[in-house]
Amino acid sequence: MTNINSTSDIKCIILQQTFTGKRELKVTTTPKPSAPADGEVLIAVKACGINFNDVLGRYGLLEDMPRPPFIPGFECSGEVLDIGTNVTHVDRGDRVVVLTRYSAWAEQIIVKKDLVFKIPKEMSFREAAVLPVAYLTAYILLFEIGNIKPGQTILFHSAGGGVGVALTQLLKLVPNLTIIATASSHKFDALRAHIHYLFEHDIDYIGDVKKIAPEGVDLVLDCMAGDDCERGLALLKFNGKYIMYGTSSLLSWDVKNLFGITKGMSNWWQNDKISCLRLFQDSKSIHGFNLLQLLSRGSNETRRYLADIVHKVFILYKEGKIKPVVDSVFTFEEVNNALGKLIDRKNIGKVVIEPFLNVKSEKVKKPKTSTSNDAHSSSTSGPDDDDNEEKESDDVQQNTTSKS
Amino acid sequence: MTNINSTSDIKCIILQQTFTGKRELKVTTTPKPSAPADGEVLIAVKACGINFNDVLGRYGLLEDMPRPPFIPGFECSGEVLDIGTNVTHVDRGDRVVVLTRYSAWAEQIIVKKDLVFKIPKEMSFREAAVLPVAYLTAYILLFEIGNIKPGQTILFHSAGGGVGVALTQLLKLVPNLTIIATASSHKFDALRAHIHYLFEHDIDYIGDVKKIAPEGVDLVLDCMAGDDCERGLALLKFNGKYIMYGTSSLLSWDVKNLFGITKGMSNWWQNDKISCLRLFQDSKSIHGFNLLQLLSRGSNETRRYLADIVHKVFILYKEGKIKPVVDSVFTFEEVNNALGKLIDRKNIGKVVIEPFLNVKSEKVKKPKTSTSNDAHSSSTSGPDDDDNEEKESDDVQQNTTSKS
Repeated sequence: MTNINSTSDIKCIILQQTFTGKRELKVTTTPKPSAPADGEVLIAVKACGINFNDVLGRYGLLEDMPRPPFIPGFECSGEVLDIGTNVTHVDRGDRVVVLTRYSAWAEQIIVKKDLVFKIPKEMSFREAAVLPVAYLTAYILLFEIGNIKPGQTILFHSAGGGVGVALTQLLKLVPNLTIIATASSHKFDALRAHIHYLFEHDIDYIGDVKKIAPEGVDLVLDCMAGDDCERGLALLKFNGKYIMYGTSSLLSWDVKNLFGITKGMSNWWQNDKISCLRLFQDSKSIHGFNLLQLLSRGSNETRRYLADIVHKVFILYKEGKIKPVVDSVFTFEEVNNALGKLIDRKNIGKVVIEPFLNVKSEKVKKPKTSTSNDAHSSSTSGPDDDDNEEKESDDVQQNTTSKS
Repeated sequence: MTNINSTSDIKCIILQQTFTGKRELKVTTTPKPSAPADGEVLIAVKACGINFNDVLGRYGLLEDMPRPPFIPGFECSGEVLDIGTNVTHVDRGDRVVVLTRYSAWAEQIIVKKDLVFKIPKEMSFREAAVLPVAYLTAYILLFEIGNIKPGQTILFHSAGGGVGVALTQLLKLVPNLTIIATASSHKFDALRAHIHYLFEHDIDYIGDVKKIAPEGVDLVLDCMAGDDCERGLALLKFNGKYIMYGTSSLLSWDVKNLFGITKGMSNWWQNDKISCLRLFQDSKSIHGFNLLQLLSRGSNETRRYLADIVHKVFILYKEGKIKPVVDSVFTFEEVNNALGKLIDRKNIGKVVIEPFLNVKSEKVKKPKTSTSNDAHSSSTSGPDDDDNEEKESDDVQQNTTSKS
């Protein structure tokens, strides 16, 4: 059932830097990992999730990155091949998901046991691969930091992205919200059923949002940074919360012009500072949430915190309240195409890469933002969406959007 | 039962500016208010609370202040003398407490009905007069913004002040906390029973707090601003919250040197700005909470929000879980002495001023931070503290600390 080669090498993706300083992603081989040591788990990877941080990392725009060459990737699913001593919560053959700080994009990986989780039997490897980053982030934003309450008004961006879709599903757990979001206009039809007000991100939405919520918005979730920080703060109600959880607007369209990007980022960095006293005078708040930073801490408390939330998310999955949405699946060799989907903002839900595209094992469903047992789902999804099971099928959507 | 004069004038305190530009508080008379209009309530004031914002206002250090001369004061208690049309929740003769944006320090006041609340029958006028600002602030900080949870670690300042005492009482509602606070060392004995770690504010407490909470603190409540903003942020755990709810450190010891104060404030204002990206990278948050700003909004939603919390606080009072602590009582004529107690940080709990010191009606109890039915209270309070009733007594502590 696993894709382990009989040779001593395994396939992986590395981020390398050429002699001219250009960063690039490349499929290569690396020696098969040795046996897992104390507290470690060896996993045969089935599917990996792509995140916007992978795009930022591709261009060197993340803090505290390893020096190239290294294996990127923050989340993957697979089967446990072997366990080290003092590993009791998973065993050989278990289907698991992994959250890791880099190193996920390989055919086999060795990881510390703490962020390896057995997945529910109903969950496909692809669903599992795209779950951790998006749903941990969305859950923490809404329920740990945002403390969202019935009747409140929320604004968030990139409603069609991985975190956006997870937010949309989780928001249905809270009654009587007013939900406002931005997204690319070509995604509006797919998103409209579950979001009350949709705006294009590139327009200045402040006036429109003020009409909808004259007293202001209770919670703004911003994955863009830049101009949206100032806009978000301007729209907050008293005791309102602005949470920055990403910086994707720093990646401009001339994404390959590294100099241009760095310059833009640096300007924003220096200028967009907030006065504590202004927050005090206005009774507003600014939060930052950075999952990668939490992963890098590696303290017991951090790992317990994240593990606790993964289990809460699994319960919601088993109750049918959430369902990860896979937009498209690519092979490792197509990784640049996979990243291109995120750069072009063409995805609804998450993009997957697999070391060996498993055409016989899983089917990619049409994107939808709702869970399949939701009464509204028909309005955003195709006729095959009631098919809740991941069946054997050749229907793999090998998206050929190429921008890399 | 009320203190209404038979003449057409009433006593009040005004903040006025002399020809030389000096601001001063002065007791004077003003015409008796006319009958309350639609939605208004006329109140015979029994007792007024003093807040640090009154000190800041005295020196012109608050935003959006009225131009002198005006009547200061944010909270008072009294008896309803008359009601306008469309006032149904209070009636003539009711014992009430009032939250107002200025104008509380007068023998009679007319206020809008929304922030007038009938007080529990067990609550004395003095307890009522010092309740709104301190307990609304403390409740919102802990439960609305801070979202404090069992097992967390909290740091706050001015533990002996009005809000500090309210925080200490409310924190007992949450199990298993680690409570760290700063206060003047002469108050340590009175505070020690309910605060696990006490530090002097003027020392650099960062190293000590890091020893107590190596992973950092979940919640920092800062009424000082200035250096404590940076310290508070440095001490936060991931997803930790720093809340600025006051700026008392901006009032330096040379408080009468208005030029010096303004200069110091302006410097801090310009320099202590926070990068959104730094918050994002560190997964931390900064909140501001400013009760005065909420009062100035005057929207229906704001008033409903505050009224809802006042009722929650009253329930806690009736359950014996909180009890406002009156440090000392002064007459209107002694208002500068009353403010001096706060400037010198000599109070534990709140300071009261009364238009006519009601020596026969109430007794000031020895300061304590715990509720009287608390098992630990004996360690911070005197032998008469089991006396939960406000009895008729001449035992009024007319503190003569004079610094104004």
